[in-house]
Amino acid sequence: MSFSITILGSSSALPTSTRFPTAQLVNHDEQFFLIDCGEGTQIQLRRLKKKFGKINHIFISHLHGDHVFGLFGLLSSFSLLGRKNDLHLYGNSLLKDIIADYLKYFGAGFSFSIIHHSFGVKSIQEIYEDKKLTISVLPLKHRIPCVGFIFKEKAKERNMKKEMITKYQIPISKIVSIKQGEDLVTENKELIPNDFITTPPVAPRSFAFITDTRYTESIIKHIQDVNLLYHEATFASGNSTLAKETYHSTSVQAAAIAKAAHAKKLIIGHFSTRYKDLSILLDEARTIFPETFLAEEGLEFEV
Amino acid sequence: MSFSITILGSSSALPTSTRFPTAQLVNHDEQFFLIDCGEGTQIQLRRLKKKFGKINHIFISHLHGDHVFGLFGLLSSFSLLGRKNDLHLYGNSLLKDIIADYLKYFGAGFSFSIIHHSFGVKSIQEIYEDKKLTISVLPLKHRIPCVGFIFKEKAKERNMKKEMITKYQIPISKIVSIKQGEDLVTENKELIPNDFITTPPVAPRSFAFITDTRYTESIIKHIQDVNLLYHEATFASGNSTLAKETYHSTSVQAAAIAKAAHAKKLIIGHFSTRYKDLSILLDEARTIFPETFLAEEGLEFEV
Repeated sequence: MSFSITILGSSSALPTSTRFPTAQLVNHDEQFFLIDCGEGTQIQLRRLKKKFGKINHIFISHLHGDHVFGLFGLLSSFSLLGRKNDLHLYGNSLLKDIIADYLKYFGAGFSFSIIHHSFGVKSIQEIYEDKKLTISVLPLKHRIPCVGFIFKEKAKERNMKKEMITKYQIPISKIVSIKQGEDLVTENKELIPNDFITTPPVAPRSFAFITDTRYTESIIKHIQDVNLLYHEATFASGNSTLAKETYHSTSVQAAAIAKAAHAKKLIIGHFSTRYKDLSILLDEARTIFPETFLAEEGLEFEV
Repeated sequence: MSFSITILGSSSALPTSTRFPTAQLVNHDEQFFLIDCGEGTQIQLRRLKKKFGKINHIFISHLHGDHVFGLFGLLSSFSLLGRKNDLHLYGNSLLKDIIADYLKYFGAGFSFSIIHHSFGVKSIQEIYEDKKLTISVLPLKHRIPCVGFIFKEKAKERNMKKEMITKYQIPISKIVSIKQGEDLVTENKELIPNDFITTPPVAPRSFAFITDTRYTESIIKHIQDVNLLYHEATFASGNSTLAKETYHSTSVQAAAIAKAAHAKKLIIGHFSTRYKDLSILLDEARTIFPETFLAEEGLEFEV
């Protein structure tokens, strides 16, 4: 089952000639979730040949322009392309007002409905659930209300050993319950323990998206053992005072969070334009957390 | 004196992986004017190494998203970069409301003032004048109120023949009036006709920006002898019915306007995404007006 993250934008507030503002596309089992939508997101989606029509859920971490100014063009393009599916929009309650104002000027003849899911959270809270996945928001420490998003797969089913189906002539009607852990009782009333006829399920995977925030240890317990952590790293450690003042993190701080949370892998991004060469950010992070990678436009990371 | 147009975006409503929505940068004697501001305009300006701080006037032809959605990011970036200069914004009166709504959410601590110049015009009207240039708006025929922009240099001064300055020992104090056409009276009361000591001025140049519009001959008289005409050409002639229905033009119609106006050169743009290869649009236009060129991102045209 696919579970991957594509980087659409890696820049902080100001874009550069090569770096777009923040946006990431999450593919979970061919369900597509867009996180943040900086200016140019629709252009990046086109370049990377991602299908607009498959995006049904958009999550906005906070209402700074570099995380939201691409939304207007993307929604307008959805409509120009004749979209019919509802579009679910998750964000701070003010986002609903911003979209209402936008539709007032640009929404004539819109082809689809926008369903708002507003949150104003003080602690971790689940905001999305389907059969295979939950998504939670986690308050961060920024200049304005801002949240991270945690994508967690649900516990998966055990796997049938194929040869056991033949051996015990197990009918299809019983397979669902066996995969959920039930033992088998044969026609001869023989009890076959579940772990004899199945193998353990694949471990559920998780992804956490953390931007924009000051270094905050309060998030660590909520992202324990996360498979893939995206954490903003606007500055190098030499600018840690500036990071604190502007409510951003350094790459060393991002790495410290990844290490404390026992993350499997870390992506850093939201780079200040002052870093033409990002190797200083990467090298500093890797001294603390070796499995660190740079967010770069177009890169796809498996969770 | 420089007078050039740089294409920042050439696409119609939907961007493609290579074509951005409409925006053009006019450089007149190192004064920079931005016309329209589709999504990604600030990214294009950075790529082409154009200085943000030199843009003091932005003109918006009409309030469809593909001509205006880049404004939010650009204005925010101006502020992040600490801009102090007033920014003059020219557009339909509704633009003022759109900007007011945008500032309500994103304008905290804005570093500069926006001066609105609103127009709602039924006929050609001058909206800008400096020592060397005038800019007028011209109503077009689109689905919503839309104008073209005509940039016209003012009549220039005659040029002094340098050898005459020596010959008649003309003092600097008289040169200004001589350049404006006055004859010279020497100390011996000798009258030297102006055209003996000067050469005619360089002809003033003009540029007309015409998008979005149905084919309309009403504009021809206002753009007679224009040096450079940009005219939208959303469709090829095979789609002339669609062009009419959507209030757009074909490249053949753009060429017919250029020919009737005796333009020196024509740029066509605002291309529909259906044309992967633009040569059909160019070839059709050139059968009528040979001096036709395609708007392509990054191209600079001398007026």
